[in-house]
Amino acid sequence: MSVLAVGSVAFDTITSPAGRVENVLGGALTYFALAAAYFTEVRMVAIVGSDFTAEQENRLKRHGIDTRGIEHANGKTFRWGGQYLENLNEAKTDFTELNVFEHFQPKIPRAYQDSSFLFLANIHPSLQKSVRLQMDGVRLTGGDTMNYWINHTPQELVDTLQMVDILLINDTETKMLANDGSLPRAARKVLAFGPQALVVKHGEYGATIFFRESAFGIGAHPFRAPALPIEEVKDPTGAGDSFAGGFMGYLASQEELNREVLKRALFYGGVMGSFAVECFGTERLESLSRKEIDARFQVFRELTHLE
Amino acid sequence: MSVLAVGSVAFDTITSPAGRVENVLGGALTYFALAAAYFTEVRMVAIVGSDFTAEQENRLKRHGIDTRGIEHANGKTFRWGGQYLENLNEAKTDFTELNVFEHFQPKIPRAYQDSSFLFLANIHPSLQKSVRLQMDGVRLTGGDTMNYWINHTPQELVDTLQMVDILLINDTETKMLANDGSLPRAARKVLAFGPQALVVKHGEYGATIFFRESAFGIGAHPFRAPALPIEEVKDPTGAGDSFAGGFMGYLASQEELNREVLKRALFYGGVMGSFAVECFGTERLESLSRKEIDARFQVFRELTHLE
Repeated sequence: MSVLAVGSVAFDTITSPAGRVENVLGGALTYFALAAAYFTEVRMVAIVGSDFTAEQENRLKRHGIDTRGIEHANGKTFRWGGQYLENLNEAKTDFTELNVFEHFQPKIPRAYQDSSFLFLANIHPSLQKSVRLQMDGVRLTGGDTMNYWINHTPQELVDTLQMVDILLINDTETKMLANDGSLPRAARKVLAFGPQALVVKHGEYGATIFFRESAFGIGAHPFRAPALPIEEVKDPTGAGDSFAGGFMGYLASQEELNREVLKRALFYGGVMGSFAVECFGTERLESLSRKEIDARFQVFRELTHLE
Repeated sequence: MSVLAVGSVAFDTITSPAGRVENVLGGALTYFALAAAYFTEVRMVAIVGSDFTAEQENRLKRHGIDTRGIEHANGKTFRWGGQYLENLNEAKTDFTELNVFEHFQPKIPRAYQDSSFLFLANIHPSLQKSVRLQMDGVRLTGGDTMNYWINHTPQELVDTLQMVDILLINDTETKMLANDGSLPRAARKVLAFGPQALVVKHGEYGATIFFRESAFGIGAHPFRAPALPIEEVKDPTGAGDSFAGGFMGYLASQEELNREVLKRALFYGGVMGSFAVECFGTERLESLSRKEIDARFQVFRELTHLE
């Protein structure tokens, strides 16, 4: 089945202890799409400027990604610069140039209307809502957000969460959104805003999925997927978006949404996040094979499997 | 089989968001012993002052713990005060009064000489070494340490690590000991100091065990146990020591030390740590049943189990 995903395409300038790259293809949606495309058909809705070349678009198309929903506007593409120096878990932003992204109004091509899955990457919650309202027939909606929207547009965010089936955010965002320092309590409060399930991403420690009572008919017990300790994290940018891509992509590739499928999706999310950080930008995500992905899935599985 | 364990017995004054307790029974060895005693016979070697009452000793004996190795000295028992206010993962120390613990010279009762397992809780590495040298016949030695010894007595510590089979420390200590920010690389460096295996405790995210090549004949793949998100952490004091108690206690209860047993031990460590933080001090560890422990083991197992 197909996943329609909306979010940012950007050019990133990234400094980490492993080196520096300038103006490389990035943005939450790009990572999401490249990760999800190993599992299912992906359709992108985004905006880019005239500096976004056909060669760059071809790097997405090469993975079977449908780019017809990428709007080409006059001006420059969104640019972000950041560095990971003392802390690989948190970027220090050097600059953010929104450029054409500032006035992004997502438009859904008619050919995308039959998409079964929807993913709302991290953009203004009101834009997320407008896309969700245009896609009323989807089977499942996943979504992301960030501290900025939690602090600055809480009402719009809570509004949007009523239309999101599975929210994927990290520990800090979960506690901030719920205003509660206990993760299980915070998770319950976030689920009360609307989602059927909440995926809390723990970075190098994996992720936990919390369910509403009776969500997907699978009961309320949480489930946790581990993450592999990575020898050298070169560039953490996009790890969470790649996680979401693996998670949503795997879900969209399955006939049924049961507990076992959601658990496997959580593992595949961790697998894609772990690949993403091995190289700068999207380099590793562009060079994978499904065989490598499934081999790492087995490693993750064996990492915590008791006989 | 029996575990001989050496370390601190203390009276703790603890403040956390959940409240405050004064002069409650604590110390790394106390937590370790209470946790391990659910699995195997535990023998303590420690020093206390004249303020340590028969009633307090009986709280240990009630769990079948052998306290004949607790030396009663003139003076006061070790006292520690700390608070967890902004961060439940790290205590801010209010005061440390070493008292009789300052001149602790561990003495091993003759009746302890046939112990099969040895655990060196967090004390000066030279004292750990002296105990290890007195117990040459043990089957397996586990050990703990802390930042203070890594920074202040690195040579003594490295010396002692040559005699430790399984070291149990946390992420920060591992990276500090190896002077390497990558966990898998740091683990390899720590293993090169001597231990066959290294257990890295991740707090609320569980723990990972790393093995030397061919250690215990079980290959070099790491293994990770998750931890349950706890609704309300009342008092994190002793969580790591309780983890070590569950881990070593379970090992000592098994005939064979194979990969599966070590994996289960890691889960039992997490289980005991998760109980310890539910109440102040040792309260929860003193009120458990093996049935409750095994039920939580099943919850931990199901938390990450894929069909």
